[in-house]
Amino acid sequence: MKQSQLFTKTQKQAPKGEESKNAILLQRAGFVAKEMAGVYSFLPLGLMVLKNIEQIIRDEMQAVGGQEILMPALTSLSSWEKTKRAGMDVLFHLEGRDNAKYVLNPTHEEVLTPLMKHFVSSYRDLPIAVFQFQNKFRNEPRAKSGLLRGREFVMKDLYSFHAGKQDLEKYYEKVKQAYFKIFQQAGIGEQTFLTFASGGSFSKYSHEFQAVCSAGEDTIYLCEKCKVAVNEEIIKDPAHNSANNVAGEAICPQCKNKSLKKEKAVETGNIFKLGTKFSECLGLTYKDEKGKDKIVEMGCYGLGLGRLIGVVAEILSDEKGLVWPKSIAPFQAHLIAIGESQKIAKEAKKVYQQLLKAGIEVLFDDRNLQAGEKFADADLIGIPLRIVVSEKTLAKDSVEIKERSSEQKVGLVKILNLDKIV
Amino acid sequence: MKQSQLFTKTQKQAPKGEESKNAILLQRAGFVAKEMAGVYSFLPLGLMVLKNIEQIIRDEMQAVGGQEILMPALTSLSSWEKTKRAGMDVLFHLEGRDNAKYVLNPTHEEVLTPLMKHFVSSYRDLPIAVFQFQNKFRNEPRAKSGLLRGREFVMKDLYSFHAGKQDLEKYYEKVKQAYFKIFQQAGIGEQTFLTFASGGSFSKYSHEFQAVCSAGEDTIYLCEKCKVAVNEEIIKDPAHNSANNVAGEAICPQCKNKSLKKEKAVETGNIFKLGTKFSECLGLTYKDEKGKDKIVEMGCYGLGLGRLIGVVAEILSDEKGLVWPKSIAPFQAHLIAIGESQKIAKEAKKVYQQLLKAGIEVLFDDRNLQAGEKFADADLIGIPLRIVVSEKTLAKDSVEIKERSSEQKVGLVKILNLDKIV
Repeated sequence: MKQSQLFTKTQKQAPKGEESKNAILLQRAGFVAKEMAGVYSFLPLGLMVLKNIEQIIRDEMQAVGGQEILMPALTSLSSWEKTKRAGMDVLFHLEGRDNAKYVLNPTHEEVLTPLMKHFVSSYRDLPIAVFQFQNKFRNEPRAKSGLLRGREFVMKDLYSFHAGKQDLEKYYEKVKQAYFKIFQQAGIGEQTFLTFASGGSFSKYSHEFQAVCSAGEDTIYLCEKCKVAVNEEIIKDPAHNSANNVAGEAICPQCKNKSLKKEKAVETGNIFKLGTKFSECLGLTYKDEKGKDKIVEMGCYGLGLGRLIGVVAEILSDEKGLVWPKSIAPFQAHLIAIGESQKIAKEAKKVYQQLLKAGIEVLFDDRNLQAGEKFADADLIGIPLRIVVSEKTLAKDSVEIKERSSEQKVGLVKILNLDKIV
Repeated sequence: MKQSQLFTKTQKQAPKGEESKNAILLQRAGFVAKEMAGVYSFLPLGLMVLKNIEQIIRDEMQAVGGQEILMPALTSLSSWEKTKRAGMDVLFHLEGRDNAKYVLNPTHEEVLTPLMKHFVSSYRDLPIAVFQFQNKFRNEPRAKSGLLRGREFVMKDLYSFHAGKQDLEKYYEKVKQAYFKIFQQAGIGEQTFLTFASGGSFSKYSHEFQAVCSAGEDTIYLCEKCKVAVNEEIIKDPAHNSANNVAGEAICPQCKNKSLKKEKAVETGNIFKLGTKFSECLGLTYKDEKGKDKIVEMGCYGLGLGRLIGVVAEILSDEKGLVWPKSIAPFQAHLIAIGESQKIAKEAKKVYQQLLKAGIEVLFDDRNLQAGEKFADADLIGIPLRIVVSEKTLAKDSVEIKERSSEQKVGLVKILNLDKIV
């Protein structure tokens, strides 16, 4: 794409009133725009990143047998009354015609569990795994962390349905592995740790994926040997003594190591064994091999896409701007023409065509700006490879290539060999 | 995909309380599930159709220079007060913390126009065209037509921004042509007519795309010669006399023909020249060549994806079920194994692998059911090509191929030549 045709522009200054690093960088670079606290629009570059992450997640969800669907945001309050969650403080309530009471779903157990009653009657129908990418709504008390805590945000939620606890356990482990793969591909694999957390009202524990990040609202205790962590919330909670032996003391749940490292972290995913909590009150049952009615076992597995973008922006950026991993970058290469001569414009255009032909996603900075401005924009936008065409490079039939993630210049590459760079 | 792994099942009976043909067929075949009136979930087959339509629309929007973004559903009421639309009767209102007043957007001028102020300052920044696929919310008084009238529905909305009316006019014509291409590709090109309608508060006229359909809530007067129509609403409205010469009389706006055909129709798209209605009250201006401040001219162009699926289900179905055009069908081929022998199961599996290898999207009915049940399901689901493997066909090293859209059997095709069928 030609940058002159991209309607967004970079901003030198941080937007007024924005304190969160991820939101400042993503707005300055033109990836998102703020509608209000916790509510952002995705602009073209931001949407490209969102779609790339969506595809990584979709592939992994399909790999664990997930079938994609799309459920509505709008639901009648009565569904939430049945599960006794109508009082949840983050629920947005609204009213339709004739005093109809609706809510906006912050999660979809209340929609999906009744829906499954149409399709599940026998153990032979199970297991089923279903996922979606859908806007979630949460009436958050505070939403000051940019994309890290949204009032409206795109989430992937996977739900699984099983005949028996054992099958749920097995599937849960599979999804856990899928989550590791997702964070690995999204570029924050090294910073993300499986974390033991409270199971809420569902089960004793749940597992979170926590990315170590100074902007995080959570505190975790990390066992650097086992690469697992414990969320502070369960250390403080005497109900979880058994895992930690002594209340108030952080102990690695795997190796029982007591010298854990305290870190700020952001929850990038959360997986729960729901058991029969929802299937029981919503009446989702199946007949087992003996024709006996049993209650379906359920799991749920969430992952916020906007939050993941926010975490990447927090962790992988530097003082000059964003630094996207190849896997989710809006473009693979940022082609920059330096110099005002006709020749340079012509040759840069040729290089652009050559890159496109080689199937390389490229943003071509064809704007009539000074080199310094173009370089600053390229650093701010954070595309993995910067390719410069100038008098100097053309003298050697080459372009200059530099990786955004390192200060090291990769050096000159012959124009002839350009299609091999990505 | 193997049908035994698809979690949805077909239903023989219409769902209770559902009167709309499109909703009955789409639910019976397992494409959608009803959450409440006007609110549906898209199940795997339905989501595949939705994604196919989305891609057709995306391609056409990009072809007219549209850049894709994603705006939020949730917006503060104050934006709507500025444009004096806070009183719109289909607006859903909700309240956040500290009495914050929000609405759910039924359309996005109130979000996008202020956003554009960051990026538009000079005539050189224009034109800009921006589109999204996003859930819209409308507090509809009646929502009894299945997917034809939703309270929550995925819509494509494109907005264009111009320096001057002339540029808007030119672009408006381009989008009009793009819409024709979309309906053509979606399989309802022949049934869809450009229709002169009221411009609402924006301009004298707008253009609708109306698909002739007995389930439609609109009445149009169709000039069969010019292939354009007039919406009844403007014939009844004396403000539009000039187009129709005599109030109450339907006249073709192009050839002035008075013998128009009265038809029921569904609005599948609507395009508006907004002019400066929103840019003026929200302060979206640009400097012209002489440095003088001018107000940006805007156009908006809507298209509901769920409604389009509903219209296709209404128009192209028959008494046996849905009939999808190839372009948007969830799969290209429905492979059916008939007979219980091991040999048939084995050969059908081979054919399935061969089709997959040839890149043909295929649903493989590998379920242990009678031929009659399988055929009835195939007719209900409506995949374009039915491919049957049976003792009889295998005796001739062949499969039997039949098009869903015609009763005529295409006949036997040698298994060797299978990859050439789609």
